[in-house]
Amino acid sequence: MQLIDGKAVSDAVKQEIAEEVNKMISEGKKRPHLAAILVGHDGGSETYVANKVKACAVCGFTSTLIRFDDDVTEEVLLAEVEKLNNNDDVDGFIVQLPLPKHISAQKIVEAIDYRKDVDGFHPVNVGRVSIGLPAFVSATPAGILELIKRYKIETAGKHVVVIGRSNIVGKPMANLLMQKAYPGNATVTVVHSYSKDIKEQCLSADIIICALGRPEFLKAEMVKEGAVVIDVGTTRVPSDKTKSGFKLTGDVAFEEVAPKCSFITPVPGGVGPMTIVSLMQNTLLAGGKKIYK
Amino acid sequence: MQLIDGKAVSDAVKQEIAEEVNKMISEGKKRPHLAAILVGHDGGSETYVANKVKACAVCGFTSTLIRFDDDVTEEVLLAEVEKLNNNDDVDGFIVQLPLPKHISAQKIVEAIDYRKDVDGFHPVNVGRVSIGLPAFVSATPAGILELIKRYKIETAGKHVVVIGRSNIVGKPMANLLMQKAYPGNATVTVVHSYSKDIKEQCLSADIIICALGRPEFLKAEMVKEGAVVIDVGTTRVPSDKTKSGFKLTGDVAFEEVAPKCSFITPVPGGVGPMTIVSLMQNTLLAGGKKIYK
Repeated sequence: MQLIDGKAVSDAVKQEIAEEVNKMISEGKKRPHLAAILVGHDGGSETYVANKVKACAVCGFTSTLIRFDDDVTEEVLLAEVEKLNNNDDVDGFIVQLPLPKHISAQKIVEAIDYRKDVDGFHPVNVGRVSIGLPAFVSATPAGILELIKRYKIETAGKHVVVIGRSNIVGKPMANLLMQKAYPGNATVTVVHSYSKDIKEQCLSADIIICALGRPEFLKAEMVKEGAVVIDVGTTRVPSDKTKSGFKLTGDVAFEEVAPKCSFITPVPGGVGPMTIVSLMQNTLLAGGKKIYK
Repeated sequence: MQLIDGKAVSDAVKQEIAEEVNKMISEGKKRPHLAAILVGHDGGSETYVANKVKACAVCGFTSTLIRFDDDVTEEVLLAEVEKLNNNDDVDGFIVQLPLPKHISAQKIVEAIDYRKDVDGFHPVNVGRVSIGLPAFVSATPAGILELIKRYKIETAGKHVVVIGRSNIVGKPMANLLMQKAYPGNATVTVVHSYSKDIKEQCLSADIIICALGRPEFLKAEMVKEGAVVIDVGTTRVPSDKTKSGFKLTGDVAFEEVAPKCSFITPVPGGVGPMTIVSLMQNTLLAGGKKIYK
């Protein structure tokens, strides 16, 4: 069993991006610039955005954080999106989700110029991923692809089971792994809350991507010997063994599943660190105009 | 075994559309208008477009056919697309594929205003289908959904195997059947040329959608008792028994597979007649501004 070290990979990727940025600067090119809009003061969102700003610094990107209070109107937010769309210095930007209930997240996402949509949530990017065209791939699926690449895990002809059909993980993951590409060319099955055959599907899987958000859902009896297990879950489970009073828990019963695996991602330290790195990779692509002119 | 009669369903749908159009006209609304661009004189394309124009007449739509010679430049074609985008009388339009090699079909498709993209090939529509938002669904998958609905075939929790991963059938079909909807909520597996487990997957399938374009690929030994089989294949196979010298052949070995099925589509007369009807349904939606304002 080999542990997939997302922390080490993410550090390596950030280092590579920083070197690429240095090269761009030495060639007289513009420093990539990521902007983030943060509405309100949700603890989780604050942490995510702070980590993104920190990662920008490590990568050598310019970053801008734009804050609004919880009671900002949709109109004002749309106007800010429009401003960023038209700001030539900003290569890519994100609107940190979730948004307050009086604002339509979908409307905001669709207002973002898809050429600056480094979160990869705009329908144009989602559609291009499905069609197999160059696009901004959303962070978690892109991070998982990067881990698969770095650990040289074979996907062609393998049976991949994706547990969960969310728009930000399950569906794009399935769409990516069925493409004519590496990683890709896999037989892909998507299972979810309506599926009656999750155990059977998982038992036939060479690779399981677990993204349903139920702590320790995937048990050893559901995994075949030698499988690759990617754990996307991060649920805060109460714990008396940590200072914070909770423990970040994955969708995989790690202790019992790990011994059966050829590769497995831990939680924390597996997929988690890769998501911010994917955003950095997209920002680099945006800065270099590698996806869209 | 029940035969799914695509011809009868398509006639019924066209009738329903014609009634809806009559109602629109009596309410003083505009008659839906579909335009088609046809480049060159490919026999297949000529037939398809002629059938679309005929179907428009049955549905009570206005139709416009715009022809270009094979040597039309990409620039001229893009200008025509732009003209149709800006023509308020045209509710939806298509560019008949394939196009001559010197023209990028993808570029043309992306130039179409997605709000008039009744073929459903624009990345915005592909992406919205994947996200689960209202969109123009491409013709073949939409036609298959319609057949499933009309025959009240249950999909929730069923294992659907889609054979083939084309952008116009396999991928959108998979994306649609995994949505939280009816038809949908299925466990979906996509298999293709790289898959090593096609037979095993098919044997576990409650519903098989066969769209790989290999005549009589699906044999009885690959199908479990009581399965639903949808055949998307239409290959012209030489035959000395027909006047034309060929026979339209599906991807399913019909004679041996049919007795095992609960439902099966024949070729011809199954999925085929539904594709043009889907285009008509999209045109009606476009005319009524039901998807986009």
